Amino acid sequence: MAPQFVYHDKNFFMNSLGTIFRIHIFGESHGPYVGITIDGCPAGISLDAVDFVNDIERRKGGIQKGTTPRKEDDIPVFISGLFEGKTSGAPLTILFENNNTRSADYEKQRDVPRPGHADFVAGVKFGGNEDFRGGGHFSGRLTVCLVAAGVVAKKMISLTEKGISCKALIKEIGGEKDIEKGLQNAINAKDSVGGIVECIVDNLPAGLGEPFFNSVESLISHAVFSIPAIKGIEFGAGFAAAKMKGSEHNDALENAEGKTITNHAGGIVGGLTNNNPLIFRVVVKPTSSTPKEQQTYNNATGNVEKFSVKGRHDLCIALRVPVILEAVTACVLADLLMLEQKIKRVISDN
Amino acid sequence: MAPQFVYHDKNFFMNSLGTIFRIHIFGESHGPYVGITIDGCPAGISLDAVDFVNDIERRKGGIQKGTTPRKEDDIPVFISGLFEGKTSGAPLTILFENNNTRSADYEKQRDVPRPGHADFVAGVKFGGNEDFRGGGHFSGRLTVCLVAAGVVAKKMISLTEKGISCKALIKEIGGEKDIEKGLQNAINAKDSVGGIVECIVDNLPAGLGEPFFNSVESLISHAVFSIPAIKGIEFGAGFAAAKMKGSEHNDALENAEGKTITNHAGGIVGGLTNNNPLIFRVVVKPTSSTPKEQQTYNNATGNVEKFSVKGRHDLCIALRVPVILEAVTACVLADLLMLEQKIKRVISDN
Amino acid sequence: MAPQFVYHDKNFFMNSLGTIFRIHIFGESHGPYVGITIDGCPAGISLDAVDFVNDIERRKGGIQKGTTPRKEDDIPVFISGLFEGKTSGAPLTILFENNNTRSADYEKQRDVPRPGHADFVAGVKFGGNEDFRGGGHFSGRLTVCLVAAGVVAKKMISLTEKGISCKALIKEIGGEKDIEKGLQNAINAKDSVGGIVECIVDNLPAGLGEPFFNSVESLISHAVFSIPAIKGIEFGAGFAAAKMKGSEHNDALENAEGKTITNHAGGIVGGLTNNNPLIFRVVVKPTSSTPKEQQTYNNATGNVEKFSVKGRHDLCIALRVPVILEAVTACVLADLLMLEQKIKRVISDN
Amino acid sequence: MAPQFVYHDKNFFMNSLGTIFRIHIFGESHGPYVGITIDGCPAGISLDAVDFVNDIERRKGGIQKGTTPRKEDDIPVFISGLFEGKTSGAPLTILFENNNTRSADYEKQRDVPRPGHADFVAGVKFGGNEDFRGGGHFSGRLTVCLVAAGVVAKKMISLTEKGISCKALIKEIGGEKDIEKGLQNAINAKDSVGGIVECIVDNLPAGLGEPFFNSVESLISHAVFSIPAIKGIEFGAGFAAAKMKGSEHNDALENAEGKTITNHAGGIVGGLTNNNPLIFRVVVKPTSSTPKEQQTYNNATGNVEKFSVKGRHDLCIALRVPVILEAVTACVLADLLMLEQKIKRVISDN
Repeated sequence: MAPQFVYHDKNFFMNSLGTIFRIHIFGESHGPYVGITIDGCPAGISLDAVDFVNDIERRKGGIQKGTTPRKEDDIPVFISGLFEGKTSGAPLTILFENNNTRSADYEKQRDVPRPGHADFVAGVKFGGNEDFRGGGHFSGRLTVCLVAAGVVAKKMISLTEKGISCKALIKEIGGEKDIEKGLQNAINAKDSVGGIVECIVDNLPAGLGEPFFNSVESLISHAVFSIPAIKGIEFGAGFAAAKMKGSEHNDALENAEGKTITNHAGGIVGGLTNNNPLIFRVVVKPTSSTPKEQQTYNNATGNVEKFSVKGRHDLCIALRVPVILEAVTACVLADLLMLEQKIKRVISDN
Repeated sequence: MAPQFVYHDKNFFMNSLGTIFRIHIFGESHGPYVGITIDGCPAGISLDAVDFVNDIERRKGGIQKGTTPRKEDDIPVFISGLFEGKTSGAPLTILFENNNTRSADYEKQRDVPRPGHADFVAGVKFGGNEDFRGGGHFSGRLTVCLVAAGVVAKKMISLTEKGISCKALIKEIGGEKDIEKGLQNAINAKDSVGGIVECIVDNLPAGLGEPFFNSVESLISHAVFSIPAIKGIEFGAGFAAAKMKGSEHNDALENAEGKTITNHAGGIVGGLTNNNPLIFRVVVKPTSSTPKEQQTYNNATGNVEKFSVKGRHDLCIALRVPVILEAVTACVLADLLMLEQKIKRVISDN
Repeated sequence: MAPQFVYHDKNFFMNSLGTIFRIHIFGESHGPYVGITIDGCPAGISLDAVDFVNDIERRKGGIQKGTTPRKEDDIPVFISGLFEGKTSGAPLTILFENNNTRSADYEKQRDVPRPGHADFVAGVKFGGNEDFRGGGHFSGRLTVCLVAAGVVAKKMISLTEKGISCKALIKEIGGEKDIEKGLQNAINAKDSVGGIVECIVDNLPAGLGEPFFNSVESLISHAVFSIPAIKGIEFGAGFAAAKMKGSEHNDALENAEGKTITNHAGGIVGGLTNNNPLIFRVVVKPTSSTPKEQQTYNNATGNVEKFSVKGRHDLCIALRVPVILEAVTACVLADLLMLEQKIKRVISDN
Repeated sequence: MAPQFVYHDKNFFMNSLGTIFRIHIFGESHGPYVGITIDGCPAGISLDAVDFVNDIERRKGGIQKGTTPRKEDDIPVFISGLFEGKTSGAPLTILFENNNTRSADYEKQRDVPRPGHADFVAGVKFGGNEDFRGGGHFSGRLTVCLVAAGVVAKKMISLTEKGISCKALIKEIGGEKDIEKGLQNAINAKDSVGGIVECIVDNLPAGLGEPFFNSVESLISHAVFSIPAIKGIEFGAGFAAAKMKGSEHNDALENAEGKTITNHAGGIVGGLTNNNPLIFRVVVKPTSSTPKEQQTYNNATGNVEKFSVKGRHDLCIALRVPVILEAVTACVLADLLMLEQKIKRVISDN
């Protein structure tokens, strides 16, 4: 009578985004590599490791106050899809080595799930089979893959006729519009803080999107909530619209191309782009790994106990978000442009 | 030499949501019917027109101040998928007749796109082929189909072991927590207003969802932004998290089942449900069709001109949103429960 | 203690085909209607009930020897997606009334599953909830929906620059190339027979398809095996290739456009169209409902027993297959052409 | 005035198969690695490089007469998804190094497209950006990735209650049932030959599949035509059914579990498994790279010219097909079992 073991209820991940321009991510925080495969990338786009440097640097901690000193070299390793310096049309796979891990920092702590982290839910989902070190596949480390996809997607959409640009900036840290001050408050309080990040896309053609299930808001929010720590999104006037009158919120059209005097809609009406800048904001929760002592339930002792986080962590994860937000936004737009057959008008920098 | 006409750049809709429990909607405001097909609905669920009455009434205008007097009977017409009073496992198609349309109210006005409406973008997307009457396929009329899907989905998830419930309520109208007062303000101002709606789901199992592209936040926000007029969503503490410290925002676990003392995460950590209530709020913009005179661009005259809305309209579309919000949320959860193989434990009311 | 009933293991259908040009079918043999929704159909294609007459007649029995006398009027009822005689870009839903059903012919016979039919497997899958009358959702009646989709798809692909045509013909009935003789043999034998149907597509552009999972052979065979009674498919030389040498089978190129002297590849190399006619053949099994007495297992008695089919049935279902084969092939090609952005060059008959 | 270059019409690949158990392949014949990512693999399956040895050896040439002497070590390099010797539930990525390539053999020959190969169509599709060396992404080299997926899928389906097995065997080479003789004929003729391969799956549960677009035949044929050189597939009696009478072809049921006396249906009725062995056969065309001199069109000279293949090639690619056929079949079945929620009953070898 051989078998004892029963598969856990639910054991799998879905790791793909997009319909034509599609990305698939893989890897764990303390595995040998994290990586990404991009399907549906048009052939003929010149691409080099140098193209990735700037965005990968923007994602890294250690530059500003309040970010973790852990740094990876994060040089993209091209496995497939590049030929003689250009995309070949075949799947583009890129790896990033995990060369700066300290597994000792993350000793098995399943009995003590960290507040705000995925420890408890990952254990429920995978029944103890998950790679728990540094969050495993739940780790923010995988966002380097998103950033890499964003480099490709931003290049691709920039090559359209008008040249679409996608730019995200921090608007608030810890409730302060003066970002330095917000960070200093956190350092002084020895506690982590959250923030607000805004993304603006210029030169999108009108008419992208669908009225219901694939509204531009649907597609962007779907992608944006893939970024760890995001807990809200608003387009244009967003939550402020709840206090506005219709005559205030409506954007009056002023020409035949659909330009409006105001942009409370954030560039999307009826689920479709309306030829005005696409604008949205997201809220980033405070880093779960705060230096402050906290409480959690210890499964071994059966008690609620004091708890302190080990390892290197950012005081404000929001500082890393802008480049990741640009990346997922650009991926969604690259996909929409291909679905809507706008990307053919692309012109190259060759 | 026959051909003159060239297809417009982009001419199609994507009208499906979900992976296993999948819904497809169709129809126009002034066509004969609007309808929905539900694939992936388990066989053996008893279903009757009576099950739909309450939610369809909740969606209708005319009950509260500030909603339009247009009412449809909205009796579900079952085309397929029901056999001897139960779902048969085959695709479930339901139609709703459009028996209360006044096409004269919506004479062709493509030259004068209404502010806040999809008139301009629909024209761009479909190059003049769209059914413009009453918004055509962009019309809020199609939300009756979503409500019907919600009736099925809510019944289905309620039949799980613990009985999952999904309930949405209005929290604010026109900036007022006293809803009557918010509406009266709008009536007095002869202007439309927006609002805030909150949805709470109880008894979800832990571990639903994925860490990245199919986080529970991703899936729910994707569906929620399919509802016309929604411009923002936040989970748990949401945008307030931007001003919180990590030690405040983190929810301390208090037992082995993952229950937390607070619920700032809104029941989702690492993209997965964590065995606490799922809570989120959405903002509904003020009804675009305000009684107030507005401005828009007249394509025929080439001038920015005064504009007044014709037809019957709600002063506050937010009043209709709760039942629709429940519906799309339940559809997402029904799909997740089937993907994660939790729905097998379903028990019936027979 | 309420619940007794447990959902059956597997209870659902997946009823969609395609990525951009997507079709969804619904309905049962003895329900009020069968129907189809087509998403992704370009706007601006003129469409009228008259366009459907010819193909719907081709699908009907009663014209040739050996087909069932059951006839439906099969007039398409347009529910959505048509505006002023043209496709609007919104989902196109078409119903066909089931006005010629004789339920008495199909009394419940679950205890006596018919050989060659889906009775047994449907019962396993749906646990007794399925609409068993006339095969329910498994019925060949639903192929009228496929034919309707084919009318739209064939019109769409015919409007491309060169004008793509898709034509299927019967090659063999009951092993006879003289079709009349094959049918007469069946009538004489009082038994049903199968056949071979060939489909040829002309004027496809080169380069459609993908090297692996979405090879043109993959996509077409996927769709073709959706047609009831098809049990095999071969492209170009097909199974005869097993006896050929490489030097015989290889098609020598003779010009810069890829034309080949022979066409053993059936117009597909490396999974992609190669600018030669696409050619494939399918085998249609003999109609399961043969007039001959057969054996089956009777669940009520626990014995293997004699069995005779009731109702009206074709002696040779293959006679109906050509128009359905054209239909699903045209749907696949319409989708591929849109995915590959070839459909923009479409020119209209207006 | 910068831009001259316009993206080619269609430039991308789709490289995914499956809904829950999903595989994604990447790489080129002469790139550094080929690889595969498997999403949706249940957690807790023990997996080791040793598990791959047998199937990878079966796929290699050089063992039997008529196969190429090129051999790769083909040791799987695990990048992600394995933790402490078991699948973790996260995406499982495996690479295979390309350490035995001779690029000099494949000098650029775009002007002289090889008959039977994808050279011409790849050039059309990718406009000259494709990696042409050794067929690039079109290369049979990528089937090592499919074999790896098959190892995982076969292990997974073998762990179900009854233990599903999937076995493919060569039935004919060059028209000979004596395989050695068929090969010797090819060697003597200095020409390549094709063959017939049969696959049998035992212990599948009844009721898997769907009546139309996701019939078991649809899903399997879709996957099978992803294997290079396959040009036809038939289930059960297959093409022989064209000459059978209905009373001959129908399989009489003999017990309450659906067992039939004959199995002309190949284990599938109405698109669903019927609790009899799943049986199908495929035809493999003769290797396109035959030693025989052939003709092709030379784009540089504008003439049809003599042509001889360079490089190392199999005389009979069919010899490698059985293990690949098992692999894609097992992947389809693993996915179906998860979709139909049968895989929960899996039991382990731990």
